[in-house]
Amino acid sequence: MFGSSFGNVFKVTTWGESHGKGLGVIIDGCPAGLSLSEDDIQVYLDRRKPGQSKYTTKRGESDTVEILSGVFDGKTTGTSISLIVRNKDQHSSDYNEIAEYYRPGHADFNYDTKYGFRDYRGGGRSSGRETIGRVAAGAIACKILKQLGITLSAYTLSIGPISIDKNNFDESSVMQNPFYMPDMAAAKRAADYLEKCMQEKNSSGGMIECIIHGMPAGIGDPVFEKLNANLGKAILSIGAIKGFEIGDGFSVAAATGLSNNDSYRADENGNIKKMTNHSGGITGGISDGCEIIFRAAVKPTPSIAATQQTVNRKKENISINIKGRHDPVIVPRAVVVVESMAALTITDMLFASMTSRMEDIVHFFNDKKS
Amino acid sequence: MFGSSFGNVFKVTTWGESHGKGLGVIIDGCPAGLSLSEDDIQVYLDRRKPGQSKYTTKRGESDTVEILSGVFDGKTTGTSISLIVRNKDQHSSDYNEIAEYYRPGHADFNYDTKYGFRDYRGGGRSSGRETIGRVAAGAIACKILKQLGITLSAYTLSIGPISIDKNNFDESSVMQNPFYMPDMAAAKRAADYLEKCMQEKNSSGGMIECIIHGMPAGIGDPVFEKLNANLGKAILSIGAIKGFEIGDGFSVAAATGLSNNDSYRADENGNIKKMTNHSGGITGGISDGCEIIFRAAVKPTPSIAATQQTVNRKKENISINIKGRHDPVIVPRAVVVVESMAALTITDMLFASMTSRMEDIVHFFNDKKS
Amino acid sequence: MFGSSFGNVFKVTTWGESHGKGLGVIIDGCPAGLSLSEDDIQVYLDRRKPGQSKYTTKRGESDTVEILSGVFDGKTTGTSISLIVRNKDQHSSDYNEIAEYYRPGHADFNYDTKYGFRDYRGGGRSSGRETIGRVAAGAIACKILKQLGITLSAYTLSIGPISIDKNNFDESSVMQNPFYMPDMAAAKRAADYLEKCMQEKNSSGGMIECIIHGMPAGIGDPVFEKLNANLGKAILSIGAIKGFEIGDGFSVAAATGLSNNDSYRADENGNIKKMTNHSGGITGGISDGCEIIFRAAVKPTPSIAATQQTVNRKKENISINIKGRHDPVIVPRAVVVVESMAALTITDMLFASMTSRMEDIVHFFNDKKS
Amino acid sequence: MFGSSFGNVFKVTTWGESHGKGLGVIIDGCPAGLSLSEDDIQVYLDRRKPGQSKYTTKRGESDTVEILSGVFDGKTTGTSISLIVRNKDQHSSDYNEIAEYYRPGHADFNYDTKYGFRDYRGGGRSSGRETIGRVAAGAIACKILKQLGITLSAYTLSIGPISIDKNNFDESSVMQNPFYMPDMAAAKRAADYLEKCMQEKNSSGGMIECIIHGMPAGIGDPVFEKLNANLGKAILSIGAIKGFEIGDGFSVAAATGLSNNDSYRADENGNIKKMTNHSGGITGGISDGCEIIFRAAVKPTPSIAATQQTVNRKKENISINIKGRHDPVIVPRAVVVVESMAALTITDMLFASMTSRMEDIVHFFNDKKS
Repeated sequence: MFGSSFGNVFKVTTWGESHGKGLGVIIDGCPAGLSLSEDDIQVYLDRRKPGQSKYTTKRGESDTVEILSGVFDGKTTGTSISLIVRNKDQHSSDYNEIAEYYRPGHADFNYDTKYGFRDYRGGGRSSGRETIGRVAAGAIACKILKQLGITLSAYTLSIGPISIDKNNFDESSVMQNPFYMPDMAAAKRAADYLEKCMQEKNSSGGMIECIIHGMPAGIGDPVFEKLNANLGKAILSIGAIKGFEIGDGFSVAAATGLSNNDSYRADENGNIKKMTNHSGGITGGISDGCEIIFRAAVKPTPSIAATQQTVNRKKENISINIKGRHDPVIVPRAVVVVESMAALTITDMLFASMTSRMEDIVHFFNDKKS
Repeated sequence: MFGSSFGNVFKVTTWGESHGKGLGVIIDGCPAGLSLSEDDIQVYLDRRKPGQSKYTTKRGESDTVEILSGVFDGKTTGTSISLIVRNKDQHSSDYNEIAEYYRPGHADFNYDTKYGFRDYRGGGRSSGRETIGRVAAGAIACKILKQLGITLSAYTLSIGPISIDKNNFDESSVMQNPFYMPDMAAAKRAADYLEKCMQEKNSSGGMIECIIHGMPAGIGDPVFEKLNANLGKAILSIGAIKGFEIGDGFSVAAATGLSNNDSYRADENGNIKKMTNHSGGITGGISDGCEIIFRAAVKPTPSIAATQQTVNRKKENISINIKGRHDPVIVPRAVVVVESMAALTITDMLFASMTSRMEDIVHFFNDKKS
Repeated sequence: MFGSSFGNVFKVTTWGESHGKGLGVIIDGCPAGLSLSEDDIQVYLDRRKPGQSKYTTKRGESDTVEILSGVFDGKTTGTSISLIVRNKDQHSSDYNEIAEYYRPGHADFNYDTKYGFRDYRGGGRSSGRETIGRVAAGAIACKILKQLGITLSAYTLSIGPISIDKNNFDESSVMQNPFYMPDMAAAKRAADYLEKCMQEKNSSGGMIECIIHGMPAGIGDPVFEKLNANLGKAILSIGAIKGFEIGDGFSVAAATGLSNNDSYRADENGNIKKMTNHSGGITGGISDGCEIIFRAAVKPTPSIAATQQTVNRKKENISINIKGRHDPVIVPRAVVVVESMAALTITDMLFASMTSRMEDIVHFFNDKKS
Repeated sequence: MFGSSFGNVFKVTTWGESHGKGLGVIIDGCPAGLSLSEDDIQVYLDRRKPGQSKYTTKRGESDTVEILSGVFDGKTTGTSISLIVRNKDQHSSDYNEIAEYYRPGHADFNYDTKYGFRDYRGGGRSSGRETIGRVAAGAIACKILKQLGITLSAYTLSIGPISIDKNNFDESSVMQNPFYMPDMAAAKRAADYLEKCMQEKNSSGGMIECIIHGMPAGIGDPVFEKLNANLGKAILSIGAIKGFEIGDGFSVAAATGLSNNDSYRADENGNIKKMTNHSGGITGGISDGCEIIFRAAVKPTPSIAATQQTVNRKKENISINIKGRHDPVIVPRAVVVVESMAALTITDMLFASMTSRMEDIVHFFNDKKS
């Protein structure tokens, strides 16, 4: 199927497998004249690369990005930008065993049913390494958004039963612990919890939150292309995400209109503000000028060393213990992926919004003439 | 913006406002040779039309559908199908007042910011009536799916604090209470709760669940077009939905790999089954042959008669009491909308999956030749 | 298949058959705030409606358009615009005969092969009436373009062997003869030629040219979405068009670089102009600021009363004489269809071009803030 | 803009510039299980690579392709296929001069107007090398089509005033002369003509024809996605193409219904055939089972060494003589590009046609179950 592209106007198309020659992405629809170097992208890739702590896989990849096209004299040219990250530390032989059976919690069985066979080495296209292209493209989106006054901040809200304490919330600590948690005390407890998981050959789920600062009102669409719907798709398209909620999210189910509606007030300068942000910055599919805030639930790493029951390709029932280099929790490395996917979505919809009003269009082309 | 279309291969495009001449939808990509009459569609529209009970708006609309194109001699022709529902009971004068201010919980402010003005009559395009086109198209999708052995069942899981009791779960009772709850006792408690809400000029949120039976394995896509991502977008594109989860959903965050992975077993006939369904029928973006199960959180009706604070177009702070004919809860009438959006998504992805394997394609065209 | 939509950003989706209830179009992506009434659209539809002269079908259709959505208080709202034209003078019984055989030059056989059956009444979806939706949408595109200083002018270049004389070219006469020819003398000769065709129960082909005035430079795209490629698709998607050329077109094949290249010159004010316009206003897929000029070849009306050989559904070889109300030449009524399709293409690509430069985007959103 | 992708279901996205690090393409939507090696692709690239004769640029590029993803154990996996060709013989310093002025017949001025600047080295993205991605993807499409019994054959019809003689038409000679002409005598005259052009520092245009054998009837779509419209867009998106015609093409303008209609006849076995093929294999946008035949006009190479008038970036009028390694005619190397673009279009539309009939869909999924 044709599912490796994302976006309508700012479009990305990714490729690559865990143990193939590499992974990459084409960004099509990036405006001309944006300063761009490999360093801009590398800093984002470094946040998802393996080996950052003892809680991540030991696979030795520097994940160094190379810009192949679309940049000239340090600036984007407006044509398609091709980025590549070469794989360097494939240990494909580790995976011969899993070629023969269907790992629980993985898509092995689904792939074989759909395609007739699969690239089993490290999960092939369904590997977490698939997100390299997303993050590389997301770095460019973030750079564009920054010039428009929009910044994104994603972080870990919980790992297993360990949640951050909203009273201790400290955004500056996000980059200072291996779990990207905005609460150093919680990060310490998470470390203890993960040690226990690893000893038990088990793994943990968790939750990620993302805030988008500086979002102007009026972005999004009233029907199918609602801003929240596109954010939801973006986030739910990341492997291991099983839930998405915006603003008050699932708690609205037990709320009332009076408790859930956000009142408007005008200040003395005529600026209109919402008194609360239950909506999470989007109502009716369109941004309302408040911070956008959403959360995603991440399932536990399915590859665990503990004994599991499954079936092999000969349709025999067997017991397995999965070997290889697996993160005991997906959450920390998924944080930058969530941020990237949100950035891609916001950029795409900002661009698409430029034709919302006839007067803006007339003004735009008149400006160009003069 | 260009956001009134949904789907890649089975595409729908909707139009219409609450107080305009009517609403409708074009279905493009419907295969030829499907028996189709207005009755097939009307039965779905009747599930969402107003006036079904005292818990829904009194607006008197029969919501009668007319097929304008794409059907000949009782069968679809393979060309675009146009459906229309005329509005009949508009009371636009009720809405002159709201033209002047921004209703909390609504997108009035966002629309004005985006478009410069808005059709304020009954919410215009952002009205719940916008879903008429979705349901009319969904009825066709459901008819297609039925021929492929796939059926969908959506129902109310909770209204405010009133949840169904899983032990009392009775799918046959869904159509027998005004809330589309699969638990008659819970429906009775929900009625009491809503009476109280209405007396307090307040409204209630709730939760909807949807099960898709008969889904074959191998449908979906590994990257951006994951089946769960497209279902998520479909559901989050319905007004008032603030959260979406699949399978164990948000509870995976506190789970472990051992508790969350679904084991496979082969029976004596070599049929491979999952022992549990934590995944909700989709792993790695591709269906696994189990029932697909997902939930959505619906916010409380934002239009309430209780006093609220807001701002008018002159940027003055005011108090308002919203008049008009509003449902005290959106959930019951949204049930069929959720089912419809899921059906559109599944149909689109089933069709898209037909080119997954070269051998299937060769076989398909060889069959056509002979 | 899903082929009733056109455009990426300014999208139209059409529906309807010759003898169904009517025909129509949804325009999605029209900016808010454009003044729009049914009169704006009717004037374009009147240029293609039947019965304008004795050289067109006698079918009695006023082709009156109704706006169903997307316009409020006389202005577009930014949401999808639905337009409908009801059929009124169907004589479906005329067509029972053609249900049984495959008309030469028509797609009857192709439809049956593709879909298994067809709506044979007046050609169903493949009727020339299918273009009603294109013209109705094109009228809106033309209104948008006019506000941006862009106007389109299409006319008949030839009917059968009768071509206009470039020395007599008089654009003001286009609307003054039934063939939309910019040369009254040629129009007179065309009338004589068509009389002869009609007497011989035969029909004629012809050629249409279109000029786009006021097109700014820099619109289009370097690779697959070249402006000329999209214009070509737009025009070739009109039934009966068998060829498309831009600028010097097919004559470039025998030209040399020296004769075909357009030199640039700067005038005293620093304005850069091309000395010639062999390119037809587009080079490398991007407009160069000159007039865009292209031509299309229209095949003769395939429905003719003269005796033809064909096959019926029982696969018997038969002779036929097609009855019914057919134009002896398609060209005159296709002129406004060509103009409309060009307008849709130009509007779509102008809108898409707004994100070509980072500095423009920053400027756009800064303007919105202030 | 977002214009580097082509196709709806079988999608390709290209990248790369003449003097960048390389060029490539992602193919998304290729079915799983197709045998594929670099050799399959290289044979097509070799037909367009420079240095095949003295009539092509001396740039020394082997244009060796590397498969980066989407193939495992020699077969496509169904996920995105990434192909790369590294540039090796860039002489960028040759191009410093052209950075300063606008070459006649090129898009330099248009690029600067659109993007604000341009990668001037060898034309950047607008170089003929851009077609490498098209040909690499086209090779895969051709391999798919061959398995479905469809083959494509493109060749040179004319170079400047030298046309092939239809009486001498010999398809087997296409690969035996440097111009890919199916007439060795014409090829000899073309060589003489080009020698003369080269001596005069001038260049030549020409014409390409393409025949598609084995095309089943019933492929295509009745409205905007007509098979001929998509072929037209595909071909017109190739740089230097100024005209496209199908079947009798522009000559239909002077034809009559009687001369242009193709009669049907059934043979003794009940097979329905057309007696003639004026339509070129497509009527009403849908294939009719005959050979598809179309032609394209190619403009003369705009880069010529003869003196030309133009303007520099300082808006001064100047005279130039373009240096560098340029083909005196584009046609021969464009032949395989035309064939490739046609193959991409046909593959995309064949795949899209699989959902035309409900009975086929039911049959398809029933087959999968059993």
